[in-house]
Amino acid sequence: MLENNSVGIVAPQIAHFNSPLQLKGGEVLTQYHLVYETYGKLNKNKSNAVFVCHALSGNHHLAGKYSADDRHTGWWDNLIGPGKPLDTNKFFVVGINNLGGCHGSSGPLSINPITDKPWGATFPVVTVEDWVNAQARLADFLGVEQLAAVIGGSLGGMQALQWTLSYPDRVRNALVIASAPNLTAQNMAFNEVARQAIITDPEFHDGYYYNFGVVPRRGLRIARMLGHITYLSDDAMGAKFGRKLRDGEIKYSFEVEFEMESYLRYQGDKFAGEFDANTYLRMTRALDYFDPAAEYGGNLTSALAIAKANFLVISFTSDWRFSPNRSREIVKALLDNELSVRYAEVTAAHGHDAFLMPDKHYHDIMRGYLNMIEV
Amino acid sequence: MLENNSVGIVAPQIAHFNSPLQLKGGEVLTQYHLVYETYGKLNKNKSNAVFVCHALSGNHHLAGKYSADDRHTGWWDNLIGPGKPLDTNKFFVVGINNLGGCHGSSGPLSINPITDKPWGATFPVVTVEDWVNAQARLADFLGVEQLAAVIGGSLGGMQALQWTLSYPDRVRNALVIASAPNLTAQNMAFNEVARQAIITDPEFHDGYYYNFGVVPRRGLRIARMLGHITYLSDDAMGAKFGRKLRDGEIKYSFEVEFEMESYLRYQGDKFAGEFDANTYLRMTRALDYFDPAAEYGGNLTSALAIAKANFLVISFTSDWRFSPNRSREIVKALLDNELSVRYAEVTAAHGHDAFLMPDKHYHDIMRGYLNMIEV
Repeated sequence: MLENNSVGIVAPQIAHFNSPLQLKGGEVLTQYHLVYETYGKLNKNKSNAVFVCHALSGNHHLAGKYSADDRHTGWWDNLIGPGKPLDTNKFFVVGINNLGGCHGSSGPLSINPITDKPWGATFPVVTVEDWVNAQARLADFLGVEQLAAVIGGSLGGMQALQWTLSYPDRVRNALVIASAPNLTAQNMAFNEVARQAIITDPEFHDGYYYNFGVVPRRGLRIARMLGHITYLSDDAMGAKFGRKLRDGEIKYSFEVEFEMESYLRYQGDKFAGEFDANTYLRMTRALDYFDPAAEYGGNLTSALAIAKANFLVISFTSDWRFSPNRSREIVKALLDNELSVRYAEVTAAHGHDAFLMPDKHYHDIMRGYLNMIEV
Repeated sequence: MLENNSVGIVAPQIAHFNSPLQLKGGEVLTQYHLVYETYGKLNKNKSNAVFVCHALSGNHHLAGKYSADDRHTGWWDNLIGPGKPLDTNKFFVVGINNLGGCHGSSGPLSINPITDKPWGATFPVVTVEDWVNAQARLADFLGVEQLAAVIGGSLGGMQALQWTLSYPDRVRNALVIASAPNLTAQNMAFNEVARQAIITDPEFHDGYYYNFGVVPRRGLRIARMLGHITYLSDDAMGAKFGRKLRDGEIKYSFEVEFEMESYLRYQGDKFAGEFDANTYLRMTRALDYFDPAAEYGGNLTSALAIAKANFLVISFTSDWRFSPNRSREIVKALLDNELSVRYAEVTAAHGHDAFLMPDKHYHDIMRGYLNMIEV
């Protein structure tokens, strides 16, 4: 059963690109493909397209189901659909799996057309700028000259921001949610620990684990457990698990004692069975490298001077991964440039994960902003 | 060269105990030994003894050096010595390596007298209460009926607090620094990730790695890297490393790019070469299990009703591992019981590690309190 306001049954599509893509790190992708999904219809003027950029472990499957009995919907189904805040009766919404991803786009799991073997560890390190360039070509492919909006949370918000810098004339609105103008040293430190857990897993084999018929499960599992700590707030973990024992009494062992341990292990195991380690490494590096102010001596105002879009910036009070302060830095730099900016700091208990939750206040703000956009 | 106010050249001592020690987890240690160091002299009345309890990776070597050309001093040398805040001209200071440790006391690395082989993974899981019981026997052994003070930071502060509950008549003052009445779910989550990194290291061998001539280096390294993130504040990491590149330019690789990565890897490697994994597991479990209020339905005031000591509680503003709020919970519960409590929240940038730093304000508070103690 699908709800009334679901986009319904959807199917991914694929776009192939044969013109070389110069990457920021120096390498060139001579050919590549992107997997994407669309919801709603592109209007006659081609003025209602909205690109939604995914975060670290996300993908192109934003909304709907792949079959009537699919138990899972897309990861932002609560936001996207007919009558939902990102209304598919009005907008033509596009979800894209980024380059280097593991959900169908060119990446470590895909075939390198030159060698006819999986790219694996040889797939280049990609950046937010590279992703945005690849997405712009997808816009060309779809016949869209200018996006009504680009939307993203977390690492997705960085892409939304980068769109306004790389293609200032091609995006009218940017919705930058639970994001940051760059990572702090602490953010990068968590990424480094996650990467080292993967890289030092004996089954990583310098990234060539496909050749050995294994995956660095242990490392990915640790990386994901750690990630989950940073996605939730201390308070949210306290409210959800507190110090609750799983079996009612302490066993004085290293087995699961507390509910929270069980949750982390479950999340880690699940992820390690689904996600590609080489992709995980690349996604965390894209986060590390994103820093538009770097070329401007750290001056974010100068870095954002080229932007022309209107902005909605949203942060969540309990987000300690990308705290409200980081969003305020973006807002300040946009205002310095006399751009149109709306900013909301939403009271929410869920930490960084709040951007994925159907909080009414948050969704009302999104709905209000998106309703105002003329298409 | 030793400074004027150093305790000078010191040597560890060992105390053997042949009466069985009942552990909270149910097991009994029939024999055990504790390694300890002392600084200053026990006075005639035996009224000037101060026990200093160590934290997760600490040990009994608090101050001084092992030889004139020893490059390292004990871990709390900045606090302890003649004329220092914990003045060895006045106090007889004792540092103890806890049961389950890896610096000489009975623990996974020591010989199980029953099997004549290293305990290894068979060494029991120990708790803060067990440590305090073992320390009380060391006090007996030293002829000390009542401690002038017991002092500890972090996990050491939990022991100081526990002393006032297990032996309310044997401790006149407790200095509980950068500590907490129990771990939050987030604190426990970090411990769990660290333990899982160790336990899933293929060289852990269920804790029997000694038999295989290996150590779970990779896991210990990840555990320590993660620990370091929680010891420093985001601001301290920012001030120390920020986004500084190690080689001045981005290499678009998974090698060290940022200074902070270099620091974490160095700390991880160093620790993995020095510390015992089975001990690390036990220390983190002792942290997890500490929760005096648990037996009182979560009521800390009731749990602390038995205490008689005078207290100095200190927290540090930037400590996000054991935030000032956690210290305030202890202070509140002590005040509810009409105990004598002094509390200081010290403005400090170093995060949890601040308790080890020679901050003048912090040390002045310690000195002032310790000066007041009559011996």
